[in-house]
Amino acid sequence: MSWLQEKDFNGFTERKFEIPSYERTVPGVYWEPKSGAKRLVMLGHGGTMHKRTGYILTLAHLFLQNGIAALAIDGPGHGERDPAGAWRGGQEEFKKAWTSGGGTKTSTEDWGESLKFIEGDFGVRPVGWWGVSMGTMMGIPFIASCKKISAACLGLMGNWGPNKSDLMKLAPEISCPVRFLAQWDDEIVPIGGCLELFEKLGTKKKTLHGNPGAHAAIPNFEFTDSVKYLTKHIK
Amino acid sequence: MSWLQEKDFNGFTERKFEIPSYERTVPGVYWEPKSGAKRLVMLGHGGTMHKRTGYILTLAHLFLQNGIAALAIDGPGHGERDPAGAWRGGQEEFKKAWTSGGGTKTSTEDWGESLKFIEGDFGVRPVGWWGVSMGTMMGIPFIASCKKISAACLGLMGNWGPNKSDLMKLAPEISCPVRFLAQWDDEIVPIGGCLELFEKLGTKKKTLHGNPGAHAAIPNFEFTDSVKYLTKHIK
Repeated sequence: MSWLQEKDFNGFTERKFEIPSYERTVPGVYWEPKSGAKRLVMLGHGGTMHKRTGYILTLAHLFLQNGIAALAIDGPGHGERDPAGAWRGGQEEFKKAWTSGGGTKTSTEDWGESLKFIEGDFGVRPVGWWGVSMGTMMGIPFIASCKKISAACLGLMGNWGPNKSDLMKLAPEISCPVRFLAQWDDEIVPIGGCLELFEKLGTKKKTLHGNPGAHAAIPNFEFTDSVKYLTKHIK
Repeated sequence: MSWLQEKDFNGFTERKFEIPSYERTVPGVYWEPKSGAKRLVMLGHGGTMHKRTGYILTLAHLFLQNGIAALAIDGPGHGERDPAGAWRGGQEEFKKAWTSGGGTKTSTEDWGESLKFIEGDFGVRPVGWWGVSMGTMMGIPFIASCKKISAACLGLMGNWGPNKSDLMKLAPEISCPVRFLAQWDDEIVPIGGCLELFEKLGTKKKTLHGNPGAHAAIPNFEFTDSVKYLTKHIK
């Protein structure tokens, strides 16, 4: 198990892979400019979504245009790792999928093994993290455990959900620069809890960008600006 | 009373003026590129400061470099309008100066007369507002009354201080795009009240940028980025 098919991705290269992680098989995807890349970003998808969901592809493309390779995997109980098929459930179903998929421990191990696999083939490069909502549920524990992440975009998550105690416990260990996106009218993760999690982040270099609107309504300019932010700070 | 001396300002033109506003005399300053400007920004200084305080000059220079003229006046009880001379007092002294200087009503009238004066000489142009702390105490009532402001940078102010009831009452009338700067460890205007004021702003196009640190410790990148923001949105 390792590299699967390779295909064109809007002029860049996309390669799927499957790797072993402990007793599991983790499906992932890796995008790279045809001339290679000197930096890497890890893209953590949101709850009920998967490694090739719409905005992850958009982000991959934006980073590729800036010469940065991108890596995504399906999180616990999500995407190709969803035993029940393509569920699109509510919060309770999401929490069940996360937890029965192994939660924080599985996610952290799988992202670690995936990075190791990519670094084995392409070498060690400066690496960043982009992930909001479940992308932050995966991101904070991974960044705290890995210590290689030079900058992160996080958000849409708070003192909330099935791994909130991990998030609140591990956030103080985050020491890299962080851009944190928050939606003032978040109907899933209430803004108050998001502000609490932002406060807990240990880094002094953190900026919260708060906008009106619902959980999934981050303005487009925050996406493009977050890519500029990471492009500047992954080093 | 009108234009006073003109001088060079780092390659741009600076002109002081004094205008009548109701029964008062308002001292102001106007900066313009030598070739003129098609847009204007109003710069509201912070409490205990004045129209030519350090960061106001920095902002003026940044806007001028983008081809935008700038206007600043001394707020109520401040700068050349401080009858007691150059006080640099604490919060109590500041509140006394603001209130005995005429507070919200005086500030709003004086900014209105100043804009009228500048528009009389240079014509009506798209206009923006930049002002945090006391610059927001002046800005929210002025923007609510004037309706000409096409975008504003506000912040460091909340449900706080001598005109807090005006701010909370008038914030819902703000309908232009707003960038709102907040400092998470603000020792003067607590962050909770700042978030309340941000929430009250009536515009749907508002973004809060929150950073760690004290009241006067807005990171430099927020200054430069706010200038980019207004340069984009003053139209």
